[in-house]
Amino acid sequence: MTEEPAYSPPAALLEALHSSRRPLLIAHLSPDGDAIGSLLAAGMMCWHLGKDPVLACQDRIPINLQFLPAQESIVDVVEDDDVDLVLALDCSDRSRLGGVYLPRRHGRLPLIVIDHHPTNDYFGQVNWVEPAACATAELVYDLGVALGVNLDADIATSLLTAIVTDTRGFTTFNTTPRSLRLAATLTEAGAPLGRILETAFNNRSYGVVRLWGRALESVELEDGVISVVNSKRMRTDLNGLIRAEGLVSFLLSANEARIAAVFTELPEGQVEVSLRARPGYDVATLALALGGGGHTLAAGFTMVGKLTEVRAQVVARLRQAALTTGT
Amino acid sequence: MTEEPAYSPPAALLEALHSSRRPLLIAHLSPDGDAIGSLLAAGMMCWHLGKDPVLACQDRIPINLQFLPAQESIVDVVEDDDVDLVLALDCSDRSRLGGVYLPRRHGRLPLIVIDHHPTNDYFGQVNWVEPAACATAELVYDLGVALGVNLDADIATSLLTAIVTDTRGFTTFNTTPRSLRLAATLTEAGAPLGRILETAFNNRSYGVVRLWGRALESVELEDGVISVVNSKRMRTDLNGLIRAEGLVSFLLSANEARIAAVFTELPEGQVEVSLRARPGYDVATLALALGGGGHTLAAGFTMVGKLTEVRAQVVARLRQAALTTGT
Repeated sequence: MTEEPAYSPPAALLEALHSSRRPLLIAHLSPDGDAIGSLLAAGMMCWHLGKDPVLACQDRIPINLQFLPAQESIVDVVEDDDVDLVLALDCSDRSRLGGVYLPRRHGRLPLIVIDHHPTNDYFGQVNWVEPAACATAELVYDLGVALGVNLDADIATSLLTAIVTDTRGFTTFNTTPRSLRLAATLTEAGAPLGRILETAFNNRSYGVVRLWGRALESVELEDGVISVVNSKRMRTDLNGLIRAEGLVSFLLSANEARIAAVFTELPEGQVEVSLRARPGYDVATLALALGGGGHTLAAGFTMVGKLTEVRAQVVARLRQAALTTGT
Repeated sequence: MTEEPAYSPPAALLEALHSSRRPLLIAHLSPDGDAIGSLLAAGMMCWHLGKDPVLACQDRIPINLQFLPAQESIVDVVEDDDVDLVLALDCSDRSRLGGVYLPRRHGRLPLIVIDHHPTNDYFGQVNWVEPAACATAELVYDLGVALGVNLDADIATSLLTAIVTDTRGFTTFNTTPRSLRLAATLTEAGAPLGRILETAFNNRSYGVVRLWGRALESVELEDGVISVVNSKRMRTDLNGLIRAEGLVSFLLSANEARIAAVFTELPEGQVEVSLRARPGYDVATLALALGGGGHTLAAGFTMVGKLTEVRAQVVARLRQAALTTGT
């Protein structure tokens, strides 16, 4: 590994991991590239160290991540009683572990948290949380250095995918010189940067393209808050497709927008709210207050209610947030 | 400068530049971020060396680049008879110099070319052309190292803007580990990566966002050809806005698409056709045959006709192109 580590894992983390034979590694539910990439990289590091880890995630791996090496080894049900440690990756609180964490079985095991979300609530016995890291994968890389694991092409591919997706292709404000240098190192170690970018970003279904168009018909801009709804009705002919992926980021590209919101009517009737803010504004506080989480500039939550009413209520509160430049 | 140079300027280039007192630096017409960023960085390097350069570009600097330092020093008319050298930046042939190059005045001066376009026709007396460089600015950085110029924040900002825009935010296939490391170095030297990305890419009007939605209502996918129309009627309330900027690239992000087309009805009744292709396909041949131009993967042309008829005719021909994987 040629890139110097930027963060140091706590000694207690290294000790726990060294003495574990069969750690249970968990990526958060509704996994994204950082969750799956960090999970796979950490899993491969365990294999390199001769351990026999269980890699788990409650929900399906998104289609655009299914090219990742070893992803077929991730399970969505954990029936194994042999695990002796739980390592949570990219999870900001216990609920993000999902159904693969079984409190009755796993509650007695040491729980280690590796994460970069500023909203992390330190739910582990050992919590390695670095909000300045651009992705949890940045910490997993540093963990690999601390563990003395060789950076092979598969680990590099997993880590680079995590970094590329979590920084939306190096475009988020937490992209640092270190993120870029680490990406260079991972590319040199065999990670296919071009293919990862192509797969991560030029990879939506035609249905999603159509859904963007329908959702954009509902676009509104009020006091710097741009929003759309994504209703069940808009999706009737789209084969179970739910999310208009990427749309919230696109909305924020409007000059006049300071905060962007997509209101997605879920099949069960709840409304999922995805939020983005321009630097200087804050959507995490509202998301957290409403039972969700995330980062200052990218957060979300789910609430019960009618689509139009949720939109009206939340937009009213976001208009307040859009008036206030944060710290 | 902490990033090792990757390319070496020809000795003849360094000699010519060293002996020049008042070089004329020219960026190409219809300038993009690499043209303007390279021009400004090279100009500032000349100032550092005590020279008195003329910075020139025929056409206006795009609005999203007008934050760049020293851009007010760029002239669009060259009446100066004192220049003693011409340095062409990011220009692939002589015509790209535009009207600021006056053959009768400047034809007798040494002409130096610094460029990264593979189509460069070596129109200078000295031609430093490196097609593997992600941007001409990558070469200008190496020139700065060779000239011993200190990398200040303004030079770094100009160079990073050039690299970020020419690699479309590190997403093009010519983005290399070196591009990423150089970007890290430039950021550390004071270039505001976040602001550059924000200004370059999160910078469309709300009208354009609405136009995307309306145009997407007309989306169709046939045999790998995805297309939309952008009609005059769709834009009646959009204050003279014409182009749905960025939409054709978005269309190509659909998995099922190999070629994307946007048909824009111009105010005068003509139809402007913007085309994009995935690697392996070719839209330049058709664009060229119909009086337009461009690159294999990004081309366009304008033709007379009714919007729906032009779409039908052109899509029929694109469907043929989408069947054929190119060289």
